[in-house]
Amino acid sequence: MMKPFFKSRGPFFISEILKSLKVGTCNLKKDVQVKDIKDLSSSNISEITFFHSKKYVEFAKITKASFCITTESLKKELPSSCIPLVVENVLVSVSKITSMFYPDAINDDFDDSAIDINQTNFKDKVIFGKNVLIGKDVSLGANCKIGHNTIIEKNVSIGDNCSIGSNTIIRNSLISNNVKILDNCVIGKHGFGFFPNKYKNLRYPHIGIVIIEENCEIGCGSTIDRGSMSNTVIGKNTYLDNQIHIAHNVKIGENSIIAGQVGIAGSSIVGSNVKIGGQAGISGHIKVGNNVEIGGGSGVIRNIPDNTKVIGYPAKNIREFLRDNK
Amino acid sequence: MMKPFFKSRGPFFISEILKSLKVGTCNLKKDVQVKDIKDLSSSNISEITFFHSKKYVEFAKITKASFCITTESLKKELPSSCIPLVVENVLVSVSKITSMFYPDAINDDFDDSAIDINQTNFKDKVIFGKNVLIGKDVSLGANCKIGHNTIIEKNVSIGDNCSIGSNTIIRNSLISNNVKILDNCVIGKHGFGFFPNKYKNLRYPHIGIVIIEENCEIGCGSTIDRGSMSNTVIGKNTYLDNQIHIAHNVKIGENSIIAGQVGIAGSSIVGSNVKIGGQAGISGHIKVGNNVEIGGGSGVIRNIPDNTKVIGYPAKNIREFLRDNK
Amino acid sequence: MMKPFFKSRGPFFISEILKSLKVGTCNLKKDVQVKDIKDLSSSNISEITFFHSKKYVEFAKITKASFCITTESLKKELPSSCIPLVVENVLVSVSKITSMFYPDAINDDFDDSAIDINQTNFKDKVIFGKNVLIGKDVSLGANCKIGHNTIIEKNVSIGDNCSIGSNTIIRNSLISNNVKILDNCVIGKHGFGFFPNKYKNLRYPHIGIVIIEENCEIGCGSTIDRGSMSNTVIGKNTYLDNQIHIAHNVKIGENSIIAGQVGIAGSSIVGSNVKIGGQAGISGHIKVGNNVEIGGGSGVIRNIPDNTKVIGYPAKNIREFLRDNK
Repeated sequence: MMKPFFKSRGPFFISEILKSLKVGTCNLKKDVQVKDIKDLSSSNISEITFFHSKKYVEFAKITKASFCITTESLKKELPSSCIPLVVENVLVSVSKITSMFYPDAINDDFDDSAIDINQTNFKDKVIFGKNVLIGKDVSLGANCKIGHNTIIEKNVSIGDNCSIGSNTIIRNSLISNNVKILDNCVIGKHGFGFFPNKYKNLRYPHIGIVIIEENCEIGCGSTIDRGSMSNTVIGKNTYLDNQIHIAHNVKIGENSIIAGQVGIAGSSIVGSNVKIGGQAGISGHIKVGNNVEIGGGSGVIRNIPDNTKVIGYPAKNIREFLRDNK
Repeated sequence: MMKPFFKSRGPFFISEILKSLKVGTCNLKKDVQVKDIKDLSSSNISEITFFHSKKYVEFAKITKASFCITTESLKKELPSSCIPLVVENVLVSVSKITSMFYPDAINDDFDDSAIDINQTNFKDKVIFGKNVLIGKDVSLGANCKIGHNTIIEKNVSIGDNCSIGSNTIIRNSLISNNVKILDNCVIGKHGFGFFPNKYKNLRYPHIGIVIIEENCEIGCGSTIDRGSMSNTVIGKNTYLDNQIHIAHNVKIGENSIIAGQVGIAGSSIVGSNVKIGGQAGISGHIKVGNNVEIGGGSGVIRNIPDNTKVIGYPAKNIREFLRDNK
Repeated sequence: MMKPFFKSRGPFFISEILKSLKVGTCNLKKDVQVKDIKDLSSSNISEITFFHSKKYVEFAKITKASFCITTESLKKELPSSCIPLVVENVLVSVSKITSMFYPDAINDDFDDSAIDINQTNFKDKVIFGKNVLIGKDVSLGANCKIGHNTIIEKNVSIGDNCSIGSNTIIRNSLISNNVKILDNCVIGKHGFGFFPNKYKNLRYPHIGIVIIEENCEIGCGSTIDRGSMSNTVIGKNTYLDNQIHIAHNVKIGENSIIAGQVGIAGSSIVGSNVKIGGQAGISGHIKVGNNVEIGGGSGVIRNIPDNTKVIGYPAKNIREFLRDNK
């Protein structure tokens, strides 16, 4: 199956990268190639990474990257195998270099390459409604249905026996077998990630995708943003109700059940067998364990251990909540 | 006026039902016909019902159904006129039998029977936009307007003087006179009802419809799910703002006003002359009385008596809330 | 640039207005003309205004309007230059007279004047998808992109370098340069403003528009309602995430960042450099200062001064919240 991941335009010579960042030489005798940009823990030799906050010092110390965009005060934490490139604003610099490697990942204009499905080979393979559009680099499995006015934009792979509703828009997504996506959804747009700037905020590229594993169902009017440096993942047999918002980099486990109007902020991780009541919200960078139940309307602002029932705002143990709210 | 209710494929012989459930004989000398499947209180002679929880014992004792899917421990509560069919998992069995009677009610794939309105007789009767599609078994009253890209899927009856916006999708709904439904709504899809299963959740049929009574208004981006065993009802002259979610089986009274982003979970009942502030949520199976005011952002997790003002999470009397939050 | 504001059908003779309101003469020797209807503070000589609540007494005392729809008990507060028209129900009367001046502003049926962009001069000027529709009195700047199935309804002005997504609907809006509006949005519909009535609620006209200033971004599935007597404004370089609802008359300052599923109720004013976390709600008629941070899920029901961080429901100072929720 075609994988809809963004393709790196690399390698680039480190001299090109230095020039773009307007930083001086890093004393390389011979110009070397940089293959890709990744985060501290997933980058490898001949790749460039970035380190902008002490929070990530443990990852910085053992990064395998050959280069690292960082600050004067943080550079001492890097291993000797990693050459620091010192800049004033790490994240703005990362945005620049990521745009070099992934120029298509910053722009989320509508896909003007999409054409009528009747002009594609899929017309004999799937059941489809009126006015269905298909972008470049799309693959569709056997026995799929695609509703009216739905747009499968570029870089989408859909498995077998999937049912996509009407008025839905999908891009940059990898969708497994037996998945149902209902009407009016938007899947795979860039997340709400940018660097605030007084005159014009600076968008950074989102090179991740959305992965929806088999047997999932996504309710009407839901939005699932693709990841920035990693992927957004909905695990096997997880069901989402209507009007849910899943932000970039979120990972949800298997067999979870998420009721209407829930919102999960960026980079949070939700376990398997989790039940989330309607309108609950989970803050960014939170970890919710396995077998957790979160009451409707709750606001989760701290990590939740496995096998816990929580409710309230801020969400706390349900026994405590009931005692406090007799 | 055509009524868009699901049609039963019954009657079936009880022997067919027993075979499907893999339960033994129930000592019937002659095979008898079963006309329909309904809940404990609305079922009648020659129909089958189900009884899976002690909560419903009062209804079970007086059910008029001739057959009841139930458990070994509950069967003793049924009247002698009702033959128990003992199974291991009542709800899964109900799902099976409901699918026999209503095979179209389990599947919410897009309506591929829908055709361009210009190919129907409605083209001379209503004012419509570009790319409007009409499914089977649709009726439209006089003086209606239907916006661009809107899809009236199968089993929809719309009264006189209705205005439907653009990009809206409606199925399995009975809409009275003078109703306005704005843009990007989805009305009449199945609810978020299924039996969780470790490998693949089991959807049960939703044989109810959505009923929207006269003079209602439904705001942009709202979703109203149809009922499972009963209907979802929006009472006369009730106004819903944008991005509201109304789950399956919910019943809302007359002259109620519901502000933006409110969510009402499955099977809750809201009275008449009720005002609900923005982003409030009502849990499932809750009863909110008449003339109630619910403050914006509130979380209603207990029944609310008539003529009460509540606010907070969990919602409590507004005087109490203001005292606690001085 | 064309301005998409509603056009007044005035002037009307005061005798016509009196007749419509069924009020007696106001002792004018010669019939005089009334140019427009506005609120107490923005109305001028030869215009009519309204005064229905003691809350607005300070504005009433200095209004420059020549006529004022009001009640027997309030009329004494008006200056001698302003002739009171005493009615039983001020707001219902205002609705009637506003409908005389702005008959197009009460009806939000779909725009049946919209035609395929290929039939307009814009076809050579902008990049557009399939099935794009353009209404009357639309202007589009240079270098714009308009996605598939998007409808630019009547009275819309869009600046240069704007990117509009797919399945989006815009009307009665003034959009500046470099604005991005993503997929499935509805911008410029009337707000949730009407006079409740036992048998049929009475909609009043919304003669304001939506103004989106330069460099803004509006996320997928968001709704922004136009103003009733003033405009709804999103300030320069303000970013909105997905599924946000902005009600009528709301004004948001510059450089603000608003996360997913936030709702802001009617007539509230939010300052510049404000950050609002996901799912937070702001009640109507609230003033949030500059440089404010509002935590995710908060419910703001009181004004928030400049330079404050608040969280909770009701939202309070973050230090207080953390102390109360250790």
